[in-house]
Amino acid sequence: MAAAKSPDHEALGRALRDLRTERGISQEELGYQSGLHRNYVGACERGEINLSFRVLLRLTRALDIRLSDLAGRYEQALSA
Amino acid sequence: MAAAKSPDHEALGRALRDLRTERGISQEELGYQSGLHRNYVGACERGEINLSFRVLLRLTRALDIRLSDLAGRYEQALSA
Repeated sequence: MAAAKSPDHEALGRALRDLRTERGISQEELGYQSGLHRNYVGACERGEINLSFRVLLRLTRALDIRLSDLAGRYEQALSA
Repeated sequence: MAAAKSPDHEALGRALRDLRTERGISQEELGYQSGLHRNYVGACERGEINLSFRVLLRLTRALDIRLSDLAGRYEQALSA
């Protein structure tokens, strides 16, 4: 799988992972809810994917969070 | 060019267009600042592109806006 790996993608991945674990759900469950394979969810969380806008929205809806809130968490993770 | 066209992509495109015109800059200038072709910028504004996270960040940096603020403008445009 192509590695996007940048500080930006890694920060987004950490934000996604934190949001998922706060909800107590597995990568498999988040994948099921968002229509993505669990391996793809894992790669997103590791910052290996240059996610599209559509995939970002699928994940925010499955996590029941607004895109602006996910973006805020990404910005926090980037500066942490 | 492949058409992404969805209410989500169209709302994001309107938000991007509004932010650009508020700054009084052309698609060409925004393209220059973000390293994207002006035609690509235009297609994004028309909701025809499923932008990647990397492209979103290029545009927010060229527009001097945080991703969370762009996302908020998208959410406003979606509900308008």
